Amino acid sequence: MPGLKGELKSRRRLVIEKVQPEVDGGRFAVKRVSGDLVRVEADIFTDGHDELACRVLYRREGETGWRETPMALLVNDRWRGEFYADGIATYTYMIEAWPDRFRTWQRDLRKRIAAGQDVAVELMEGSRLVREASHRATGDDALRLEQRADAMEKDWAPELRSEIAVEESLAELMDRQGDRQGKVLYDSGQRILVERERARFSAWYELFPRSTAPVAGKHGTFRTTIAWLPYVEQMGFDILYLPPIHPIGETNRKGKNNSVVRGADDPGSPWAIGSHEGGHKDVDPALGTLEDFRALVEAARGRDMEVAIDIAFQASPDHPYVKEHPEWFKHRADGSIRFAENPPKRYEDIYPIDFETEDWQALWLELESVVRFWAEQGVRVFRVDNPHTKPFSFWEWLIGRIKAGYPEAIFLSEAFTRPKTMYYLAKAGFSQSYTYFTWRNQKWDLTQYFTELTQTEIREYFRPSLWPNTPDILNEYLQHNGRPAFVIRMILAATLSASYGIYGPAFELGESQAREPGSEEYLHSEKYELRHWDVTAEHSLRELIARVNRVRREHAALQRNDTLRFLELNNEQIIAYMKTSQDGEDVIIVAVNLDPHATQSGWLRVPLLDLEIGDAEPYQVHDLLDDAYYSWQGEWNYVELNPHVLPAHVLHLKRPARR
Amino acid sequence: MPGLKGELKSRRRLVIEKVQPEVDGGRFAVKRVSGDLVRVEADIFTDGHDELACRVLYRREGETGWRETPMALLVNDRWRGEFYADGIATYTYMIEAWPDRFRTWQRDLRKRIAAGQDVAVELMEGSRLVREASHRATGDDALRLEQRADAMEKDWAPELRSEIAVEESLAELMDRQGDRQGKVLYDSGQRILVERERARFSAWYELFPRSTAPVAGKHGTFRTTIAWLPYVEQMGFDILYLPPIHPIGETNRKGKNNSVVRGADDPGSPWAIGSHEGGHKDVDPALGTLEDFRALVEAARGRDMEVAIDIAFQASPDHPYVKEHPEWFKHRADGSIRFAENPPKRYEDIYPIDFETEDWQALWLELESVVRFWAEQGVRVFRVDNPHTKPFSFWEWLIGRIKAGYPEAIFLSEAFTRPKTMYYLAKAGFSQSYTYFTWRNQKWDLTQYFTELTQTEIREYFRPSLWPNTPDILNEYLQHNGRPAFVIRMILAATLSASYGIYGPAFELGESQAREPGSEEYLHSEKYELRHWDVTAEHSLRELIARVNRVRREHAALQRNDTLRFLELNNEQIIAYMKTSQDGEDVIIVAVNLDPHATQSGWLRVPLLDLEIGDAEPYQVHDLLDDAYYSWQGEWNYVELNPHVLPAHVLHLKRPARR
Repeated sequence: MPGLKGELKSRRRLVIEKVQPEVDGGRFAVKRVSGDLVRVEADIFTDGHDELACRVLYRREGETGWRETPMALLVNDRWRGEFYADGIATYTYMIEAWPDRFRTWQRDLRKRIAAGQDVAVELMEGSRLVREASHRATGDDALRLEQRADAMEKDWAPELRSEIAVEESLAELMDRQGDRQGKVLYDSGQRILVERERARFSAWYELFPRSTAPVAGKHGTFRTTIAWLPYVEQMGFDILYLPPIHPIGETNRKGKNNSVVRGADDPGSPWAIGSHEGGHKDVDPALGTLEDFRALVEAARGRDMEVAIDIAFQASPDHPYVKEHPEWFKHRADGSIRFAENPPKRYEDIYPIDFETEDWQALWLELESVVRFWAEQGVRVFRVDNPHTKPFSFWEWLIGRIKAGYPEAIFLSEAFTRPKTMYYLAKAGFSQSYTYFTWRNQKWDLTQYFTELTQTEIREYFRPSLWPNTPDILNEYLQHNGRPAFVIRMILAATLSASYGIYGPAFELGESQAREPGSEEYLHSEKYELRHWDVTAEHSLRELIARVNRVRREHAALQRNDTLRFLELNNEQIIAYMKTSQDGEDVIIVAVNLDPHATQSGWLRVPLLDLEIGDAEPYQVHDLLDDAYYSWQGEWNYVELNPHVLPAHVLHLKRPARR
Repeated sequence: MPGLKGELKSRRRLVIEKVQPEVDGGRFAVKRVSGDLVRVEADIFTDGHDELACRVLYRREGETGWRETPMALLVNDRWRGEFYADGIATYTYMIEAWPDRFRTWQRDLRKRIAAGQDVAVELMEGSRLVREASHRATGDDALRLEQRADAMEKDWAPELRSEIAVEESLAELMDRQGDRQGKVLYDSGQRILVERERARFSAWYELFPRSTAPVAGKHGTFRTTIAWLPYVEQMGFDILYLPPIHPIGETNRKGKNNSVVRGADDPGSPWAIGSHEGGHKDVDPALGTLEDFRALVEAARGRDMEVAIDIAFQASPDHPYVKEHPEWFKHRADGSIRFAENPPKRYEDIYPIDFETEDWQALWLELESVVRFWAEQGVRVFRVDNPHTKPFSFWEWLIGRIKAGYPEAIFLSEAFTRPKTMYYLAKAGFSQSYTYFTWRNQKWDLTQYFTELTQTEIREYFRPSLWPNTPDILNEYLQHNGRPAFVIRMILAATLSASYGIYGPAFELGESQAREPGSEEYLHSEKYELRHWDVTAEHSLRELIARVNRVRREHAALQRNDTLRFLELNNEQIIAYMKTSQDGEDVIIVAVNLDPHATQSGWLRVPLLDLEIGDAEPYQVHDLLDDAYYSWQGEWNYVELNPHVLPAHVLHLKRPARR
């Protein structure tokens, strides 16, 4: 047939499109955690009026066969199938669909019978389909099908023969043995990266080990940090994150408050990594030995916490790499090595690494060996400094390699940059990502931002980690609004997202003084000097933090983000939202007064219809923060929040008992 | 380097994603018409802080080289480039982007100078870039670059050398000669199907030629249809669409009002194609000869109209195919051929074609030869009957083949089925598509539907054709609401969409009687009997139709759909919307009273901000239907519409004169 085959894309009649979850046509993995129910949806349709049969095929890496789960029609040609992802592994899925000849025939037969048409010829056709299937079947199914085909061919009245033909049980038999002629396979190679639960649900506590000494003025160590573990554990955190623990450079070392002039005792910024005492695979001798570090990792594990370290791929001018691999750095026209800068800003104590070096292969392997080294010391959580200034492809490669050996590894991206860059880093493999939360203080911008993060495709790969403060960022809102501001920001962070963190003890002790007006830098920042903290202080937020973290552990609704929805509340100063567990059983409603100065009140609308609660049914809400109980009824309910007492409700909604 | 290259997807640093326009990752063509400005957008970004250079590469089929147009940064890493698509052809485009080393250097230099830094070393680096470019350049550019490199290297003060270095003219020189190291190419093979203007902007008039006889009771012919052309032309239509013109089967021929009992003189349904007198390549002898048909085609062309025929791939039991190719039809278990049905409905006068026949290749080629046959008779517009009951891949293949020989060919899809099927047919190649407009009579559903059609990705491939009535559909709204209903529906169809049609003379004469209550079928439908129409009747809408079609021709805003936006108006009975030409110069505002019984009024909000009209500036609107002029000011303006006078405004907004 001239010209027919060449131009013909496909004779397949079915279309499978708009598949979810899918990231960039299968280019990047979708993220889930072990135990999640994976919900696959697609538009599936064909010409004409055939009934369709649709299946999700999925398998865990290493499995040779495919497991299969049926898809059901939702509405408007949209189909859904579900399966559980168990274990820390990568899954792959595909969709298969075909015209279901038997169910099409059965549906039409029912209509013909209802219209009183003669169905004798139709029964002949149907019995032929059943007989064919009986030949494909084995065991009891073969017998069952044969017996039904026989019955449909008997010289009984058509009504009698039809009774057997229209049974759902026959359709189910046929589902198992039916032909899949005209089958279409949708295979984008979509991977589902199933991580451990902590990749999604985690509470981080950032701490400078050098500030953990029991007496002021002394340099803290890994050993003195071990003594802090009970304190961090009591507050309910599960990840203890340490800024870089490596030897700190001497050349151009910064003094207190980032001064270019340093005092003799100034310890320097831990991010100026490398000295004659070693580089990224060494520990700062002032902190102890590698053995001490391993002891800290072990001690944390004993309390169901783990230690995260900071991966900052940059070097002080004294780093061994500078001498051994000058080709890994950018040289200026005068032969000097270019220090880090973002013109006109200069970071004279740091050399950035040149990822475009001719010797990139050796460089990349060396950097990977750094992460591997710390994994070998028992570290499984890595906070990565400024990943957006290194190539995306480098991270995709590195994270893939590390996770191949250590599937439990978790990487947190510290990229405060433009949104698309942040999202792309998450696609490239980071388990969690810093966000703009730190600068979102109003109802409208929090609502807009978290709707984008949790209700669009972004949620499939980007897991937000919310930080009210970091050693780099003391937001204005915290500087000027006293203790209520800290409480407000902490509760927002801990309930808007399943993962959050604080930089302590600066946070729980309400440290709020900036280096200078208009700056987000802390005065006497720990980045440049030792601090001594009195964590037993009366005004500490430790009790509240402990309570909030306990609530998070006890309520599945707070351990995920995809169910987040904002609720109507007629006051711009109070933000309200709801989260539920995946099965909808656990329901948490949060209302936060964003005004740190004055009591605010308003009417909050509970989405009763979606919760399947009647307008006339009273229901109870239990404030998990102050243990108060309220009996509510109807959609609109009154809330009033005094920031000087407690600026938030975290309410557990109890559904009315059913008969 | 073990394990490095194999796992590494790409070292390229740039990312190009979220490219528009693009349909299904380039699988299907985007549709445009000749003369359109094609606007290409993408998210383009990289790690770090480099400036980027981005280009759209495009070419018309047959061209070997690529044309190039620069992209500009809009906001938030979104880039845009534009080019004109001229001529009826398929274009392809790609996007190319690379880090712009020179502009990055120049930007940083400006910042360093502003910060008072020493830039001597930077000037050395810059001059090196310029010098390298001068070697790549030819002619005057080479000289210009060399001269600037020299100047940057002189022993003048750095300030003086910098003056040359920061000039935009130097950056432009470098743009032409700059290196494209690190270039990334985005190539999804995206095609742009550029059709003639009528593919987007057209007014259809459907007419049964057999009802065109000058005297009642006689069978009209192609020749008597020619006599109707001035009438159709005066109303301003440009496509005259004829139901099937082929011999009509005798077996099971339907009688008047679709009766299974026929009268001796009943002409039968034109969709029951084929008899002993021929099939799809023959004309019904009652209508005349093929020569007569060609004369009609010619006569229409002489009035700048064209004839569209109906492609209905189905056969009456008497069609020659049934004897010659019984294998092209579905056989029942008793050996009989299955007639068309949608259980429990039966169409005993029609056999559907079995596209899954083993002999499909011969079948497909035969059907293609049918369309080709009529193209050879001069037909360029094809209305396709029920395409959704044939495989999508068949249409994609057939339309592609026909358009390869006849690029001006236009196919209209008559698929009244589920939305995703309708959209997919448009992707497969149909230039225009019937819609649900016929059943959308309220403000909310019209707004929702046309927002979906014109403001989502669907607009890239689906061109709506709006029909207030068809021979199959006399909507309830027309049955019960008198003349105002016809005026309302006609104005909506003609202004909501650049393409629309009416089935006449039933429409302009206000034919409104259904076969029975609850039916959408016409009483005495022309599908089953001859009719005689008095188009000179006093109550005809022909004058209004002519006026509306004239307004459409005179206003570019009404010749496209992508600029449609609905306007606020505080009355649910009045729908208001605005359309503009692509350059924004032509502005049309339409307000239609959807209540066919009572006068309705309300305040309409004109989007002055977008129109760049000040709140205090008066502006004029000219009603193109009744020639009234109004002077408006500010956003909110009063409208009042009496359905018994004229239920709509079609307003041309004139911007205030500028100094």
